[in-house]
Amino acid sequence: MSEPLETFSLAKGFRATATSCGLKTSGVMGASALDMALVAAEGPCSAAGVFTTNKVKAAPVRYDQEVLAANPGGIRAVVVNAGNANACTGPQGMVDCRRMAELVAYGLRCQPGEVLVLSTGVIGRPLPMEKVAQGIATLTSPAAGRGAALAARAIMTTDTRPKVASARIHAGGRAVTISGFCKGAGMIHPNMATMLAVITTDAQVAPEVLDRALRAAVNKSFNRISVDGDTSTNDTVLLLASGASGVTIVPEEEGRGEDSPSPQDTSRSLSLHTFISSLTDVCVSLAKQVARDGEGATRLVEILVTGARSEAEAHQVANSIARSPLVKTAVHGGDPNWGRVLCAAGYSGADIDPERLSLTFGPADRPGDSDTPAVQVVAGGLPTDADLRLASAALRADPAHIHLDLGLGQASATVWTCDLSAEYVTINAHYTT
Amino acid sequence: MSEPLETFSLAKGFRATATSCGLKTSGVMGASALDMALVAAEGPCSAAGVFTTNKVKAAPVRYDQEVLAANPGGIRAVVVNAGNANACTGPQGMVDCRRMAELVAYGLRCQPGEVLVLSTGVIGRPLPMEKVAQGIATLTSPAAGRGAALAARAIMTTDTRPKVASARIHAGGRAVTISGFCKGAGMIHPNMATMLAVITTDAQVAPEVLDRALRAAVNKSFNRISVDGDTSTNDTVLLLASGASGVTIVPEEEGRGEDSPSPQDTSRSLSLHTFISSLTDVCVSLAKQVARDGEGATRLVEILVTGARSEAEAHQVANSIARSPLVKTAVHGGDPNWGRVLCAAGYSGADIDPERLSLTFGPADRPGDSDTPAVQVVAGGLPTDADLRLASAALRADPAHIHLDLGLGQASATVWTCDLSAEYVTINAHYTT
Repeated sequence: MSEPLETFSLAKGFRATATSCGLKTSGVMGASALDMALVAAEGPCSAAGVFTTNKVKAAPVRYDQEVLAANPGGIRAVVVNAGNANACTGPQGMVDCRRMAELVAYGLRCQPGEVLVLSTGVIGRPLPMEKVAQGIATLTSPAAGRGAALAARAIMTTDTRPKVASARIHAGGRAVTISGFCKGAGMIHPNMATMLAVITTDAQVAPEVLDRALRAAVNKSFNRISVDGDTSTNDTVLLLASGASGVTIVPEEEGRGEDSPSPQDTSRSLSLHTFISSLTDVCVSLAKQVARDGEGATRLVEILVTGARSEAEAHQVANSIARSPLVKTAVHGGDPNWGRVLCAAGYSGADIDPERLSLTFGPADRPGDSDTPAVQVVAGGLPTDADLRLASAALRADPAHIHLDLGLGQASATVWTCDLSAEYVTINAHYTT
Repeated sequence: MSEPLETFSLAKGFRATATSCGLKTSGVMGASALDMALVAAEGPCSAAGVFTTNKVKAAPVRYDQEVLAANPGGIRAVVVNAGNANACTGPQGMVDCRRMAELVAYGLRCQPGEVLVLSTGVIGRPLPMEKVAQGIATLTSPAAGRGAALAARAIMTTDTRPKVASARIHAGGRAVTISGFCKGAGMIHPNMATMLAVITTDAQVAPEVLDRALRAAVNKSFNRISVDGDTSTNDTVLLLASGASGVTIVPEEEGRGEDSPSPQDTSRSLSLHTFISSLTDVCVSLAKQVARDGEGATRLVEILVTGARSEAEAHQVANSIARSPLVKTAVHGGDPNWGRVLCAAGYSGADIDPERLSLTFGPADRPGDSDTPAVQVVAGGLPTDADLRLASAALRADPAHIHLDLGLGQASATVWTCDLSAEYVTINAHYTT
């Protein structure tokens, strides 16, 4: 799903621009770095958003929730700034969001109520609106940098690389594209730990269907990554549908639940199921890129929990393992310290049975792969006599795979995180081996 | 409550011994380090225990729960080994616990069912019972090292110092002593992250009253510290009451709820309320010593949440702040990064109102102290114009105080943690200032 940045573009009906207006002057990047991006649609789009669950919500989060509630079928643009989160900024924060929308609307000749706003950066400082206004003027002018790759770069804060993903679905001679970019959270980067994603599609989707699709996809992707366990005030995933492909997304209960041509229309519909599946692929790719780019991370860690009574319980256990600094340092050091994994499962809150636990390091789906052999280190809650050097090698692979089977049911869940590196862990990572 | 190690002793009716039997050979400490301790009572004691909530419970946890259920009024000894946690060791783990109890009983001429067992160290390896048996033989012989200070040292794993605390209550010419020692959790130390505490008192307390007292005290102390968020398979707090002081603890509903002499007995009773208060003092002291000794910690952090609707909600918010790596690195760097505190409060799960939040760095109870002045950085959810250099100085104090008022009610809670130091945080600790 991730693809070379050079060939990356948004779905039909969208264009992206980027510029620099001096918002990233606080030390991380130079004043000349790109710090604003605009995604503009040719016409009104359906739009859906998923927002942070943090009770302390940044102004743009509250602003976008209002805009989407009022006008989910007529969104024309998303403007993003990096360097300042516009969070904990009081009533002025909402005033500044509205002003940003007005400036974009002026430049694009649309209505302010058709513009969504995203911000990421330092908390508690008013937006420097003079710079922002200048940035928006450039973004909506021929002077702006063009292309989705530049936009993906402009919204970066502590990210070490841009994060983009696309998928294409073919339906009766027509193609639907889903394409988006995002920025992620540094391991312990404070005010910039926000996760923002903007995803576009040229499918034609009713707003309520789009909302359903986005929630389903986010639940399997962005809600399944853990970097440092903190949930930001600004986290937002937006999905815009232009309809430019001419293909309509039809919920199963309305269509026949298949993608074959219907009697009325041989080529212009696609099942919601198929759309969600591809949207989920795009979101999972973006989410894994975020996890992989955690501050100081050296590799992606994929935690699979199977044999759970419910998916919620599987997720709960996988999340507990992913959040454990003990597990993450063990992965970093290639230390096959299975006790830490069992311990994290034990305090997850799920009702597990220690004597039914099986734990394998290495990929579950290719146990015969000689490069990174899977090694079962625990069976029935007790250590096996597995060669711990092989278990260590499995943990040193990228991605590192941890597979815990609870032995209780049929449900499963996957969570992605990164290892925990740096001098901080040097003294701890090599303990038991 | 913490006191010089030289003068530290247990309550009347108890003696402590310590020895070395070669369990700490895995790298952290030399083979000659003390690694076993015994607390023995002159006669049968009431006993109570609070154990880990982890679903994966080490054998000694399950063993002690059985012993206490069967014989809460007749405990004679607690034996402790460091270096091996006897966790994830299957049925053999319970066999080894019972054998340890038998060996202690043989040496002390009591019954195995009168002996409690504690272990801390590596997970998943059978106890080396030959060494352990030799250790117990020494512990119950004149060859053992004597004194509670040695015992406190013997149970250390990654601790940098022994942790002891005592309190004395005077009741009508007699004195009751509460005295205990514990070991704590390193920041990210894996299999040794166990917290163990053994507390003795010479008060006379019925087992069910002792259990009530211990749960009340632990709830305000050991349950209020956070080091790295992991809950070990072995965490245990034990309290033994010898009765040797001749003073009886009387629950309020049975006595008159006061400590003044009763008509029947002018000097031999003390209210449960008073006993719990002093026991809580001892437990808080030990718990703070554990938090203060987190791996790499440079200072204690005290997080006070006031103005909550309930104590549970106050605890929930304080705990969320204490667990945030972002907050802990900010404290370490003396970075008055109040946004991180509000953010952690926001995702705590408590139903807070961002616009009612007030945040102060520095001690709440002595705002006029010129050494570490308290600085209010947030009022009504918005930053004040406080001097951030003073706020930084407040965070650099030891202990560092963080006081968040939710503005919703009258309940409050305090949680202790430590800062997050080392190269791991160097690049993050100095971000906003």
